[in-house]
Amino acid sequence: MSQYNQPLGGNEMPRFGGPATMMRLPTAASAEGIDAGFIGIPMDIGSSNRPGTRLGPRQIRDESRMLRPYNMATGAAPFEHMQVADLGDVPINTFDLKKSVQIIASHYAEVLSHGCRPLTLGGDHTLTWPILRAMRDRHGPVALIHVDAHADINDEMFGEKVAHGCPFRRAWEEGCLINDKVFQIGLRGTGYSPEDFDWGRDKGWRVIPAEECWWKSLTPLMEEIRARIGDAPCYLSFDIDSLDPAFAPGTGTVEPGGLNTWQALEIVRGCAGLNLVGGDLVEVSPPYDPSGNTALIGANLLYEMLSVLPHKG
Amino acid sequence: MSQYNQPLGGNEMPRFGGPATMMRLPTAASAEGIDAGFIGIPMDIGSSNRPGTRLGPRQIRDESRMLRPYNMATGAAPFEHMQVADLGDVPINTFDLKKSVQIIASHYAEVLSHGCRPLTLGGDHTLTWPILRAMRDRHGPVALIHVDAHADINDEMFGEKVAHGCPFRRAWEEGCLINDKVFQIGLRGTGYSPEDFDWGRDKGWRVIPAEECWWKSLTPLMEEIRARIGDAPCYLSFDIDSLDPAFAPGTGTVEPGGLNTWQALEIVRGCAGLNLVGGDLVEVSPPYDPSGNTALIGANLLYEMLSVLPHKG
Amino acid sequence: MSQYNQPLGGNEMPRFGGPATMMRLPTAASAEGIDAGFIGIPMDIGSSNRPGTRLGPRQIRDESRMLRPYNMATGAAPFEHMQVADLGDVPINTFDLKKSVQIIASHYAEVLSHGCRPLTLGGDHTLTWPILRAMRDRHGPVALIHVDAHADINDEMFGEKVAHGCPFRRAWEEGCLINDKVFQIGLRGTGYSPEDFDWGRDKGWRVIPAEECWWKSLTPLMEEIRARIGDAPCYLSFDIDSLDPAFAPGTGTVEPGGLNTWQALEIVRGCAGLNLVGGDLVEVSPPYDPSGNTALIGANLLYEMLSVLPHKG
Amino acid sequence: MSQYNQPLGGNEMPRFGGPATMMRLPTAASAEGIDAGFIGIPMDIGSSNRPGTRLGPRQIRDESRMLRPYNMATGAAPFEHMQVADLGDVPINTFDLKKSVQIIASHYAEVLSHGCRPLTLGGDHTLTWPILRAMRDRHGPVALIHVDAHADINDEMFGEKVAHGCPFRRAWEEGCLINDKVFQIGLRGTGYSPEDFDWGRDKGWRVIPAEECWWKSLTPLMEEIRARIGDAPCYLSFDIDSLDPAFAPGTGTVEPGGLNTWQALEIVRGCAGLNLVGGDLVEVSPPYDPSGNTALIGANLLYEMLSVLPHKG
Amino acid sequence: MSQYNQPLGGNEMPRFGGPATMMRLPTAASAEGIDAGFIGIPMDIGSSNRPGTRLGPRQIRDESRMLRPYNMATGAAPFEHMQVADLGDVPINTFDLKKSVQIIASHYAEVLSHGCRPLTLGGDHTLTWPILRAMRDRHGPVALIHVDAHADINDEMFGEKVAHGCPFRRAWEEGCLINDKVFQIGLRGTGYSPEDFDWGRDKGWRVIPAEECWWKSLTPLMEEIRARIGDAPCYLSFDIDSLDPAFAPGTGTVEPGGLNTWQALEIVRGCAGLNLVGGDLVEVSPPYDPSGNTALIGANLLYEMLSVLPHKG
Amino acid sequence: MSQYNQPLGGNEMPRFGGPATMMRLPTAASAEGIDAGFIGIPMDIGSSNRPGTRLGPRQIRDESRMLRPYNMATGAAPFEHMQVADLGDVPINTFDLKKSVQIIASHYAEVLSHGCRPLTLGGDHTLTWPILRAMRDRHGPVALIHVDAHADINDEMFGEKVAHGCPFRRAWEEGCLINDKVFQIGLRGTGYSPEDFDWGRDKGWRVIPAEECWWKSLTPLMEEIRARIGDAPCYLSFDIDSLDPAFAPGTGTVEPGGLNTWQALEIVRGCAGLNLVGGDLVEVSPPYDPSGNTALIGANLLYEMLSVLPHKG
Repeated sequence: MSQYNQPLGGNEMPRFGGPATMMRLPTAASAEGIDAGFIGIPMDIGSSNRPGTRLGPRQIRDESRMLRPYNMATGAAPFEHMQVADLGDVPINTFDLKKSVQIIASHYAEVLSHGCRPLTLGGDHTLTWPILRAMRDRHGPVALIHVDAHADINDEMFGEKVAHGCPFRRAWEEGCLINDKVFQIGLRGTGYSPEDFDWGRDKGWRVIPAEECWWKSLTPLMEEIRARIGDAPCYLSFDIDSLDPAFAPGTGTVEPGGLNTWQALEIVRGCAGLNLVGGDLVEVSPPYDPSGNTALIGANLLYEMLSVLPHKG
Repeated sequence: MSQYNQPLGGNEMPRFGGPATMMRLPTAASAEGIDAGFIGIPMDIGSSNRPGTRLGPRQIRDESRMLRPYNMATGAAPFEHMQVADLGDVPINTFDLKKSVQIIASHYAEVLSHGCRPLTLGGDHTLTWPILRAMRDRHGPVALIHVDAHADINDEMFGEKVAHGCPFRRAWEEGCLINDKVFQIGLRGTGYSPEDFDWGRDKGWRVIPAEECWWKSLTPLMEEIRARIGDAPCYLSFDIDSLDPAFAPGTGTVEPGGLNTWQALEIVRGCAGLNLVGGDLVEVSPPYDPSGNTALIGANLLYEMLSVLPHKG
Repeated sequence: MSQYNQPLGGNEMPRFGGPATMMRLPTAASAEGIDAGFIGIPMDIGSSNRPGTRLGPRQIRDESRMLRPYNMATGAAPFEHMQVADLGDVPINTFDLKKSVQIIASHYAEVLSHGCRPLTLGGDHTLTWPILRAMRDRHGPVALIHVDAHADINDEMFGEKVAHGCPFRRAWEEGCLINDKVFQIGLRGTGYSPEDFDWGRDKGWRVIPAEECWWKSLTPLMEEIRARIGDAPCYLSFDIDSLDPAFAPGTGTVEPGGLNTWQALEIVRGCAGLNLVGGDLVEVSPPYDPSGNTALIGANLLYEMLSVLPHKG
Repeated sequence: MSQYNQPLGGNEMPRFGGPATMMRLPTAASAEGIDAGFIGIPMDIGSSNRPGTRLGPRQIRDESRMLRPYNMATGAAPFEHMQVADLGDVPINTFDLKKSVQIIASHYAEVLSHGCRPLTLGGDHTLTWPILRAMRDRHGPVALIHVDAHADINDEMFGEKVAHGCPFRRAWEEGCLINDKVFQIGLRGTGYSPEDFDWGRDKGWRVIPAEECWWKSLTPLMEEIRARIGDAPCYLSFDIDSLDPAFAPGTGTVEPGGLNTWQALEIVRGCAGLNLVGGDLVEVSPPYDPSGNTALIGANLLYEMLSVLPHKG
Repeated sequence: MSQYNQPLGGNEMPRFGGPATMMRLPTAASAEGIDAGFIGIPMDIGSSNRPGTRLGPRQIRDESRMLRPYNMATGAAPFEHMQVADLGDVPINTFDLKKSVQIIASHYAEVLSHGCRPLTLGGDHTLTWPILRAMRDRHGPVALIHVDAHADINDEMFGEKVAHGCPFRRAWEEGCLINDKVFQIGLRGTGYSPEDFDWGRDKGWRVIPAEECWWKSLTPLMEEIRARIGDAPCYLSFDIDSLDPAFAPGTGTVEPGGLNTWQALEIVRGCAGLNLVGGDLVEVSPPYDPSGNTALIGANLLYEMLSVLPHKG
Repeated sequence: MSQYNQPLGGNEMPRFGGPATMMRLPTAASAEGIDAGFIGIPMDIGSSNRPGTRLGPRQIRDESRMLRPYNMATGAAPFEHMQVADLGDVPINTFDLKKSVQIIASHYAEVLSHGCRPLTLGGDHTLTWPILRAMRDRHGPVALIHVDAHADINDEMFGEKVAHGCPFRRAWEEGCLINDKVFQIGLRGTGYSPEDFDWGRDKGWRVIPAEECWWKSLTPLMEEIRARIGDAPCYLSFDIDSLDPAFAPGTGTVEPGGLNTWQALEIVRGCAGLNLVGGDLVEVSPPYDPSGNTALIGANLLYEMLSVLPHKG
């Protein structure tokens, strides 16, 4: 019997039964003693197009029910050396986006105070800003691997500073990022001007548009990225809309010509060896995901993140 | 040839083509010269459970494409004596609910200044508050026929004064309502205490829970209501979740045991003869309406509202 | 062992297996020797709004798989005294509506020549015109029970004489109907003028709008209808859009405020005793029926029609 | 602060967040100290037509998230006088139906041993047999209110004694029922012979076919039933397919012409005053319920069952 | 402020509001003064399998709402040097395919007479024939880039010359095409004989089956094609079923093993430098596209076509 | 006129009409005289996660309606040299998985006794075990090409020997396989230990995880496989979940990062030249396939299997 929490197995309870927690893990009321914790942020009021990411955490948890403990591809066995738990949801204020940002920041400050590495189930991308602020307060500025169809560096949307297209601008303004260790992978689509991608480049960020990813493995890119980041604390923000809609239909701001799941797995698996201090998987919108597979892929990518977390100690 | 705008007919353009405006009517940039105008408020950030009403106006307009000009049941022919247009959408701030309330109030003040009677395509129910404020500024306090599963008179939700469960509390506080001419039809479900329905009763409102509506025509009730309201300016707020989910599945805060469409038609048709100064149809959530029929019913009810508007002059 | 075809039972093959014929009955290549035959007409090119009825016959057959032989409500046991078969589909020309009308008329002339009573799985309502023509050629003019949201007596649609809004006008012009034995039940919605319903009344038809059906059993109406029709040959044309969209969401020209399935069953069961020479169930559109239940209801109503066919001999 | 468990409120956590337990209640690992417990049985291998009820418990719990503690219609406040918890799922053997029956029987024996009244989230109807067996062992034979489209008294299906069409035959054989206190409400559809309904009548059961329920309130029927049952221990088994598919599309063996939700509420509310020792809500099939509303109605009916449980002491 | 029409921006109106025109552009009643115009042809009566393309134009417009003016990948900024408008729909005769062909031909003759380059939102593929006829009348025979799963060169379907499998045969017969400048990309699947692909080859057309496209970028192919076409007037007909159903599920005649969206973008972007006189995007069928993403991809491809139109002057 | 059965063509009956058999072929009551027969096994009670494969055969047949006789890519024309028929479904016992295994084994023994090569429409993967047993009895041990996300070699699931995760363990135990001619392609995901893939390797099987397939054609792999198998009798078992969920969303145990349809076609086409004695396509779950395309791809792969069957004689 392991000393650590284990996901409830399919031989103890049918996969379609049991608790609807992440991977059917036990819950924990606090992050104390938890090495890695799954946290939901049920929010979509920062979304600019289709709604629905408020239901992302529930659906990701539901579809995570088939995940088994061992990673066949990488050999990782995260439940053998870490205490993992489902830490529940952040009680955001669904009627006030700005207040929700504060609630999230405080919530993560508390979680980080226990040395826990949070893996977040989004929710719209606004949420990464307050998480990065909490990360900065804990670790100082961090390296960032940002996988997305959009740069999310708008100064404003509809005159507002807080929206799902602005989190990395805000985080940059607050000094959360190590500028020469920021990577944006998968950007594409239409915009207002070249500035949309060049703003980050001006700050020293590396932007890898989707077109540069077509037709090839991203394993070499990840090698480069690991080399550049070294042992800096690193945060991974994975927007499911980085994937082509063939692979992840259930999201709100869809751009064709994106990454595929082979690349998605290469990216997350390519983070092994980094000092990952947390990660998020955002923008899954269940109402646009009739088969449930976008949530299922989200659950898998979160499990892959867990698989590459540094061993404790 | 009529002097008034006419919906584009099925013999001129197939029903599935043509402009995606309400009833395929011409649009108008201003309410000047318009007797009755359809206005969309694409908002769902005031919603407390399922999202999606932000797409309500688009979907209602889409499904309104089959509506013909003549009301077979009542003989109304609204396009023969009124100038009707689609006035487009209110540019709400989707990242800030409180600002959106102000935007709506201003927008309707302008519309009302032209003597136009607005029929609103929602959108979550928060929007009725600013509309009622504009109504009060134009007409003084109004009578209210409020059809809904919920009383929507919460003082706060999650500590907030602005949310889709609070509009009639706010409107009452601002003196928008004639208390002895307020009717709430269809209330039901679970709550926190009897207060949920009794608060209005204490103000003199008449609350008709869904259970009192079961098994019978509401035509007699509407007679009573018309007698009580007389010629006071009257506003009709119709939340589609007043209907049982069998009849209107595509909405966000579903309560079984509701009204049916026969009653819905009786209610709106029963408003004929009132001095209706405006109306709204709210809470249609297209992502939960795979057949499109909830939006279609919403479109029909808006047409029925148009059919009972007082003739001008 | 019965001398007649029997539906494949659930104890011989699971309900979700076996042939996808109507009620899992044997097929027959010709109507010879068949007392009652199910025939599909996979057509939607006569539809004016949503498409999809071309898939109606396939879906109705699929969802008919649960029907058992005995009618618990009426005690009818149609497979004990009739030879029933699935006669397959009419090979319409899906690129030319006018030619399809001729194909259908010829096809039914052949079927009727064997004394078979056809029960048709539609398909859009255009198909009833050629069937009625074949009926007239066989039986002379017939009585008609027409259950529908629409009168379908337009002279033209988009300048065309052949469309799903015109079949009963065409049938009347061709002398297919006994004018004082025509009943239109369930009409409602919007139109172009009162003429839409009054045209038939002028011919002596009885029009029963949906509003007259609300809140009550239709059993008394059916008694009246039976008394009026007597033993004249009678055709039953049942458009699934006669039902309120709550009961039959999967159809193309939806009108709220319709009949319910209790009334639908009362109508078809109320035909017992008539000399029913055929019937159809039209306008089921599977793409708008995600649960499959509209097709399932259609299958049940066709079974109820079978249950009220006169016993042979 | 109540001494009892309370559902997590919408002012503490948005409705779309928080634990996916029934009504967002706390879980309990054992029934000890629990007055009323919700239990899921994620099973569909007893189903004869459409699958999917294995996902019923998860979906019912998910859609129960909007339920508030107070019953506006009846004034019941179950959380003020009972300890209620979500007792999780029964670990059925999804590859062997007969073994699952044993697992369920043992599981409920344990639950009942604590004096807990179980309210079960199904799952296919096979599950009621082992529950009734456990009830008999605890209470002796029980009165039964069985709401369903089907009698479920088949001796065999496909040669098997264990299937979702047989539970009440099995329960009768095992002496679980008080024959003159058994009521079957809502039966209808097609069958193999009159025996399908008459078998129970022969035992003294009262069968109320759906047709007898049309057009009227069932409140008087429930009065009769209460009078007959008196203070005998009573079990309520509610198959969601008793409802017409308009009201509950998401189920596997659909029969048109059923009950409506007004009647469903009347039935459950009409159980107030009985000595209800348990109840179940079965046959919700989420894959056929795209809006989620069938699960939501199931959740509401389970809440209504909770509302009529006798107060303890 | 530009002198040209601009799409309504997301900072002026939320993306889910505003007019449901293509890219939320202004409409124009005539092509006069319009350099490039989006035109809808809401037609599906030429379809041989699944229906639904009649709703293609409405859905493509709806999902185009997120498109911004600047092309991040190519740097194109079409609204800075062209007057672009939504020219509405062609009023086809939905009951008569042959008449619709004439209506389309006349409609496009008028549009072309103004020097406007039309980009067409289909609709089934039949529509390309009359467009090519109008192109020939204006420009003489044209080069053709035809992206599709099917060759669409049948002489007849079901004995008919007009159907969605015949347009390029008809166009060839009428001398609309420059035979050594015709390219068919993506063909695959099952057929009746090798003739299905060889017919075009016999005319000098280049056929590139899907299998030749697997595993590689199509940028080199497009270079070849541009070299061959030179400055001849060129028409681009893009059938969405050229894409593998993973990428474009919402269409009617699906063939696995198709192109991906990376290749689709390469093809359209590879048309930059050609003298494109028009283009179409056909066969999007919304009822088979529950997430809306097929329409969204169609909208993006139409925007990419706009991006490669030759600058005027 | 061919001496062999032909699929009903689209010029004789619209694609959406006609019999819902595989490819609209004639049925045959016995395999006598049939060279290759399509057989459905409507079963899902061996499934461990999502249900629904019981409906696989019906849906695959429905979506096979567009398949034409000639294979454009390979030149195969299977209906010119083989008698092919739809042999209907196996009457499994849906309430008892173990008995169903026996029923299947007997059924296939009978089919094989006629020298017929069966192509099976699943159904969950449990069914391959009894088929392999029948194969062994007829042909001795066989070579196996097993395409799947999962190894399906569990000794037990939930303590059971019969389940959809165990068929190849059982077949191995029974001596059905030639161990050095077993290939498992596409394995991936999470598991319980490395043993999940290594068990087969220990037996001499070749395991090709999905990761080894990424980014490349599988044609070279198939060459290797053909060389190794030579002329041994070979069985092809194709689990649709081998495909990435982008390509085949409608299945029950989804694992991201899988094969694409280009590879799927390469695999099946790469079987040409082998002595294929049968094949199956399993785990299509229609309730999770809203567009129907997963079933359609399944139908195409079954047709491709037919295309590579050895010519008779």
